[in-house]
Amino acid sequence: MALSEDSQIVITIPAWVDETVQSFGPLVDDESRARLVVRLARMNSERGGGPFGAAVFLGDELVAAGVNRVLETQLSIAHAEVIALMRAQQVLARTGLPTTGPYTLVTSTDPCCQCFGALIWSDVERLVCAAHTEDAEAAGFDEGPKPSDWVQILEGRGVAVTRSVLREDARRVLEDYRLRGGRIY
Amino acid sequence: MALSEDSQIVITIPAWVDETVQSFGPLVDDESRARLVVRLARMNSERGGGPFGAAVFLGDELVAAGVNRVLETQLSIAHAEVIALMRAQQVLARTGLPTTGPYTLVTSTDPCCQCFGALIWSDVERLVCAAHTEDAEAAGFDEGPKPSDWVQILEGRGVAVTRSVLREDARRVLEDYRLRGGRIY
Repeated sequence: MALSEDSQIVITIPAWVDETVQSFGPLVDDESRARLVVRLARMNSERGGGPFGAAVFLGDELVAAGVNRVLETQLSIAHAEVIALMRAQQVLARTGLPTTGPYTLVTSTDPCCQCFGALIWSDVERLVCAAHTEDAEAAGFDEGPKPSDWVQILEGRGVAVTRSVLREDARRVLEDYRLRGGRIY
Repeated sequence: MALSEDSQIVITIPAWVDETVQSFGPLVDDESRARLVVRLARMNSERGGGPFGAAVFLGDELVAAGVNRVLETQLSIAHAEVIALMRAQQVLARTGLPTTGPYTLVTSTDPCCQCFGALIWSDVERLVCAAHTEDAEAAGFDEGPKPSDWVQILEGRGVAVTRSVLREDARRVLEDYRLRGGRIY
């Protein structure tokens, strides 16, 4: 029997994501954080990716950002929220940053059924969303079989949920993607 | 502004996983496939990981196997099903293997809420499970807010579900983990 070697799953995040993060100043409120993830969503869409962005914060400090990488990586799981969470968890595992405030996921659209489930195990304490599930669906995306009371379920598990922050800006990113004939997957 | 470089998320799968796969012969029925993933679950548990294994098949051909890597990687998303699916999608993206039969995920325990959601976007056509949700819960694991009619929802989306294949063997792996005082996360 041939001996195997350790193998790896590798997901690349292009440099422009962190360059965009650096180009923003301090992100001290939900609106400025939402502005960043909506910008990431638009930039990803303009580069041929899915129109979704997300970022993880500890208090006012950005830990990691992500964009949808499904089309480029062919990994169906590579939603913006999952990318941001995995990056943040790798940063925190490496640096052991002290918690300086609530562990927060900010996302350009309400989470889909998969990201809702991933949130449950992520230790995230706050979720901030811009566009609504209906906005994604109006642009042709399927958000999947997420419980209709998903906000209450998250709140019941200790995740405070704030929605509709810059909703209109985020909705326009989704709508523009649809108008350009962006691929729905 | 400092220029950023592309960054990466890297998840390592230890060599013993694929060595174990190679040590099994052809896996031509659900029972032999379930035997593999239950073995992977037990081996992972004995090495300090979570007691869960999974594998993806195209027809009779194994595409990729996975084990739970949450504790080692500190990635809350790194469940066995997600690892196996990401590995399989990377293999298929690279090799463009023709589909020679149903695209099947075999898992040592019913999927949790996150893996249920991930399945929705994975293009998997068949799901085969060994231990039940209740078996994982009896061992102290939380399967999360998965819809009670999750099997019907998957079937309605074109995923055929077969449960209880080698359930007792798989249940024992979970129970042994609990008896050894394995970490619940």
